[in-house]
Amino acid sequence: MNDDKHHWIGFDLGGTKMLAVVFDENFEPIGRARKKTKGHEGMQTGLKRINAVIAEALADANLEAEEIGGLGIGCPGPLNLKKRTIREAPNLGWKNVPIGDSIRDEFGFHVTVANDVDAGVFGEYTFGAGKGARCVVGIFPGTGVGGGCVYDGKLIRGANCTCMEIGHIPIVPDGPLDGLGNRGSLESVASRLAIAGKAAQACYRGAAPVLREKAGTDLSDIRSGALADSIAGGDMAVQAIVEKAAIYMASAVVTVVNLLAPEKVIFGGGLIEAMADTILPIVEKSARQRVLPSLRNVFEIVEATLGDDAGVMGAAALARQEVLQK
Amino acid sequence: MNDDKHHWIGFDLGGTKMLAVVFDENFEPIGRARKKTKGHEGMQTGLKRINAVIAEALADANLEAEEIGGLGIGCPGPLNLKKRTIREAPNLGWKNVPIGDSIRDEFGFHVTVANDVDAGVFGEYTFGAGKGARCVVGIFPGTGVGGGCVYDGKLIRGANCTCMEIGHIPIVPDGPLDGLGNRGSLESVASRLAIAGKAAQACYRGAAPVLREKAGTDLSDIRSGALADSIAGGDMAVQAIVEKAAIYMASAVVTVVNLLAPEKVIFGGGLIEAMADTILPIVEKSARQRVLPSLRNVFEIVEATLGDDAGVMGAAALARQEVLQK
Repeated sequence: MNDDKHHWIGFDLGGTKMLAVVFDENFEPIGRARKKTKGHEGMQTGLKRINAVIAEALADANLEAEEIGGLGIGCPGPLNLKKRTIREAPNLGWKNVPIGDSIRDEFGFHVTVANDVDAGVFGEYTFGAGKGARCVVGIFPGTGVGGGCVYDGKLIRGANCTCMEIGHIPIVPDGPLDGLGNRGSLESVASRLAIAGKAAQACYRGAAPVLREKAGTDLSDIRSGALADSIAGGDMAVQAIVEKAAIYMASAVVTVVNLLAPEKVIFGGGLIEAMADTILPIVEKSARQRVLPSLRNVFEIVEATLGDDAGVMGAAALARQEVLQK
Repeated sequence: MNDDKHHWIGFDLGGTKMLAVVFDENFEPIGRARKKTKGHEGMQTGLKRINAVIAEALADANLEAEEIGGLGIGCPGPLNLKKRTIREAPNLGWKNVPIGDSIRDEFGFHVTVANDVDAGVFGEYTFGAGKGARCVVGIFPGTGVGGGCVYDGKLIRGANCTCMEIGHIPIVPDGPLDGLGNRGSLESVASRLAIAGKAAQACYRGAAPVLREKAGTDLSDIRSGALADSIAGGDMAVQAIVEKAAIYMASAVVTVVNLLAPEKVIFGGGLIEAMADTILPIVEKSARQRVLPSLRNVFEIVEATLGDDAGVMGAAALARQEVLQK
């Protein structure tokens, strides 16, 4: 590798904002820029905004494109990793997005396209809660439930570039419907949306006075923070709902531990950030009781440590991995 | 690699019999030997019997130990792959079995120790139903439910050398107890034993006349073949029980496809050998409906093709892989 090119860029393309961070050779951030995504303005405008954010971050770091080893970008939706395109990003309303070529044509450096959750898991594996483990699985319960797995230093990727879709594994036969029309998936019973749906009912029935005061019965307002406040304020009904969801999360842990035997299962995402203390001890106890006896003491359940930086750090680290392996 | 050493031995250590097969460089079998395992005679006697079977297979192939590149042995129970020992083989009543060293000390060639189901999956991947795929998952419903996964040409192995214990992933919350004291695992609802337990009840109630005639109500007699005969003879109650089990197997397929996106999911084992036509179309239909839409057309469900040979072929191929990588 050219010695000049020891800087890396991580890019996080979210539904509402986009963020670029430039890292030096020690992966210290030395420049950053962000903009609103504004997906509704269309794909072409969006691709230009992405390049503008990258240019701004480069300027902030006082670097030229020639000094960059590569850029990794974490994207929503199903991707085509080989063609470096987004097949479909429903949140943005974009389809068949040639995001890799668009950035490469503008700046000339290597571009790695990755799933946004995968990028976050790779970030935690490389720099955060998963550091030093041979195999880590990330589980991120938020509005949905995202997941990813690093095995022997690499993200596990299956056919069609999609995998570790842990939110869609079946947990409860004939359970509630999820967004894909399947019943009883992890998302359908343990996402923020699933919990909010039940909490709103408790609220409506008058069983969750604190939640009623903080958020009311509109699911859009029952965010992870409101659920945490409700439990902290003494809403026992909401606590019971969250605890039940934690048991379902534990089922997912039992599944991945029995299948892949990771040393670390990393929990992050909105629900965990808001109430790790309520959820993780239950996940821990239930999962450890139910995994294979020979695996009972070989895994740890840990909380993600990098927060929002996991995505950009992981994306940049993925770009570095791809470039160094060439 | 020394050119003389292009023969490989596969060994299958079962609860009732042990089998050694010598393969030539094209993996054609050129010698074999088998004996009853007789675990009750103790570990030391057992290790001697194992070496005797190997010597017999070598003689049958008219080869010396010096002409063998390596031996792979598929073993039951939790293993220590690095020390090449069996931690515990409950079926045999043996513990801390130094099986790798025992064989190596006698013959001098390389010995690879593997889980017996893993060896079978690797055999199907290398020579059978999984040939050519990048990632395959094997699911083997018999008395229990075994599983294994080959990803990018290698068996997936987690911490503690145990993984892809698909029989122990949770399928039905608060379901029936399994042999490990967990509720609702795949084994507890979709193994031969689980099916036999329900079929015996149907039989006892008079709802399965064919099964009553063929096998009666003793679970030890309700083998996979008897269940198949019962369905073929028109026992609708037994058919419904097996079909329900197939739906649970499909849940396991949905889980592994959504997590790992294998190109092929290989089904084998006693239940499948006895009634693939009853089980697999239901697994196929249910799983394909329930996986992520983007994965719906990227996986195939196929029946294992090597039968009992999968274990010895896979074990030998694992030994070859390990030797060639050195």
